Amino acid sequence: MPVPRPRTATGTDVTTVTTAPQLTTNVVGLRCRECGTEEELGAHHACGFCFGPLEVVYDETLVAARASRGAIAAGPANLWRYAPLLPALRDGPVPDDLGTGFTRLVAAPRLAARLGLGELWLKDDTRNPSGSFKDRVVSVALQAAHALGIGTLACASTGNLANAVAAHAARAGMPAYVFVPDDLEQAKIVTSAVYGANLVAVRGTYDDVNRLCAEVADARGWGFVNVNLRPYYAEGSKTLGFEIAEQLGWRLPDHVVVPVASGAQLTKVHKAFEELVRYGLVDDHPVRISGAQPAGCNPVAAAYAAGVDDVLPVKPETIAKSLAIGNPADGYYALRAVRQTGGAVADVTDDEIRAGMRLLAETEGIFAETAGGVTIATLRKLAREGVVRADERVVALVTGNGLKTVESLIGHVGPTVAIPPSLEAFERALPATAGGAA
Amino acid sequence: MPVPRPRTATGTDVTTVTTAPQLTTNVVGLRCRECGTEEELGAHHACGFCFGPLEVVYDETLVAARASRGAIAAGPANLWRYAPLLPALRDGPVPDDLGTGFTRLVAAPRLAARLGLGELWLKDDTRNPSGSFKDRVVSVALQAAHALGIGTLACASTGNLANAVAAHAARAGMPAYVFVPDDLEQAKIVTSAVYGANLVAVRGTYDDVNRLCAEVADARGWGFVNVNLRPYYAEGSKTLGFEIAEQLGWRLPDHVVVPVASGAQLTKVHKAFEELVRYGLVDDHPVRISGAQPAGCNPVAAAYAAGVDDVLPVKPETIAKSLAIGNPADGYYALRAVRQTGGAVADVTDDEIRAGMRLLAETEGIFAETAGGVTIATLRKLAREGVVRADERVVALVTGNGLKTVESLIGHVGPTVAIPPSLEAFERALPATAGGAA
Repeated sequence: MPVPRPRTATGTDVTTVTTAPQLTTNVVGLRCRECGTEEELGAHHACGFCFGPLEVVYDETLVAARASRGAIAAGPANLWRYAPLLPALRDGPVPDDLGTGFTRLVAAPRLAARLGLGELWLKDDTRNPSGSFKDRVVSVALQAAHALGIGTLACASTGNLANAVAAHAARAGMPAYVFVPDDLEQAKIVTSAVYGANLVAVRGTYDDVNRLCAEVADARGWGFVNVNLRPYYAEGSKTLGFEIAEQLGWRLPDHVVVPVASGAQLTKVHKAFEELVRYGLVDDHPVRISGAQPAGCNPVAAAYAAGVDDVLPVKPETIAKSLAIGNPADGYYALRAVRQTGGAVADVTDDEIRAGMRLLAETEGIFAETAGGVTIATLRKLAREGVVRADERVVALVTGNGLKTVESLIGHVGPTVAIPPSLEAFERALPATAGGAA
Repeated sequence: MPVPRPRTATGTDVTTVTTAPQLTTNVVGLRCRECGTEEELGAHHACGFCFGPLEVVYDETLVAARASRGAIAAGPANLWRYAPLLPALRDGPVPDDLGTGFTRLVAAPRLAARLGLGELWLKDDTRNPSGSFKDRVVSVALQAAHALGIGTLACASTGNLANAVAAHAARAGMPAYVFVPDDLEQAKIVTSAVYGANLVAVRGTYDDVNRLCAEVADARGWGFVNVNLRPYYAEGSKTLGFEIAEQLGWRLPDHVVVPVASGAQLTKVHKAFEELVRYGLVDDHPVRISGAQPAGCNPVAAAYAAGVDDVLPVKPETIAKSLAIGNPADGYYALRAVRQTGGAVADVTDDEIRAGMRLLAETEGIFAETAGGVTIATLRKLAREGVVRADERVVALVTGNGLKTVESLIGHVGPTVAIPPSLEAFERALPATAGGAA
């Protein structure tokens, strides 16, 4: 249902006038997803009435006026090319100095052949600035913080989110505080602390850390990207959907496979496709959305399999740490989007995750973190079950770099042979017939 | 000295006709850098007469006809946009399916301020496909292998080169063999083996491994990227220079700081600038080229400091493993380019390298491997000494991703504070005055 685009007095499509000053923001407030109560813009995420999650409310007329294929194509080669569709709270150029997003959408013919699929594309977020899709949501949260007058960026995280907050804050010259459990491995500390972020090691459970963060957010007025800035932050995941459509030549795919942690990424990709249709940027086309979870943290897959709406919390135990959210805040909404679109949610074991990582690297030369292994292994499973079909244009999301989870493969891939340094020993170990002579 | 561009009968500049079939390659043979003896194209790297290094010889008329700003701008967003200036042995499109090169050249104002410099740019190769500049040279070597009918890609390496060979071969569907010492750490094995590359663990010294590789190259006819494909491979480093000039708006910088391992990268960046001038792609402009080495492997810096031409081998002992070449094949040529252009070579200690990594991450949000720390620390040293000046347009090469050398920082960056999970404890540990309240 495209919204008619407003036109200037001369009949020019105003959306193509990218140099015109834009004096109003495209965001008008926040609204509770549960009860619809509206709230003013600010650093808060829970409805004051029912405690439901707050979401950004856009001025749809303004968005329709600004969001055109031409304006987007004329934008920067990062996720801020979609500024008209994001909570850009201040008008004017919104740089992302780290170059986040607008990552490759790459055809994967060799992987498709191995899976018995037809047209398969990979969204390759392994090469975002800090190596994961979290750069997207943090980039959007950081701009919101600026606009709201918040000078310090913070989060609770043990991994990708901490890296992204630390990197983006460094480039922006903002202080950053990252709250971590005090037993976090040294390697995970290094990859955030190197950016000069303050690491606060907290002796307590994950719940303890989160409660402390909420208290600090109130006491200090800091911007915790995934707490009080969450309404803005979460919108960043829409850019995955926008990029997929643009990179397919402004077409929607038939089926998308998305990893599920909190469930926000899946629901936001779904929302992105809806918005593209609403604003006339793509033709309407049904997109099936499927979810991928590790078997060791599968609350949404379990609810899907049981045919129920209730997503019951689980205790995570999986090598896919970046998907290990046992009580996913958006699990219900992710499940609903999957069912609405005719997708499925499946889960895969740690061994299948490792096999998925290897399959992706062997066929397409992309080394993904464990979450990428979850997506590829789930894609394989759904292809075998006939849920993902060979006649579909399929996109799989590869959301993080394998260099972040090398430890998950140690002991599982190793040298082919070990030999003394002689040609004779080599020929004996790897005869020419087996060795692929030129 | 621009070469006149050939024109068609109609006077059209043929270089702008990018869709015309190109039936001849731009490479005519190989030539010894020492004695000038010419050899036919093939998989060999040493002069049959004097054992000097062979280099690619281009058909300069053809290069001049093909290499224009327009043709380059119309090319792909990877290093093959410079195909007219590379050993593209087969005509027709030369894809790089992994998306290698054409990485960001990013302004670094905060780092510049810290170093007392003016205009500073960083060439950010941390986001190449396998996380280092080695993807550039391997991409070029792989295309040469294809053209020469070589079906198997190989190398001896313990790090970045192995990763790049394994990744590119996987995407191309070629078998790959990586020869490593048998005591290589598990993490370094994983990052190549995951791509399905055959890892041959060799019990012996680095020299033993290299000798075996030369024998295997002869016996099997495989393409060892940095041995028998070296003349093609090395040309890939020119793309760093091409990109810098194009991304500066087709201008040469005043000063470039390049890390030195074999010395090939520095000499090829120098060559790239010369070629751009020769083919009229940029105006002639003197570029000072300086080299950066770790103090624990500083043969070129030592020769520079001593004012001699002889680069004496050293035994490497440094955290910058990717620069640990004790007997650099192109050390002499690198030294010559530095002296010719009025640059310098300096070296930095392991502590300075770590400080360089942190300084880069803290100011610009880029996490580089140890080699990047060497470049930034050397830049700092040269700026303090007045060798790199505030009135210069400076470019520093950041050639690899910090996720590859996390271990170098373990124990050197850590949590700021450790506290129990209470706001009171937090306030005590980090009072608001110190904590950067919003």
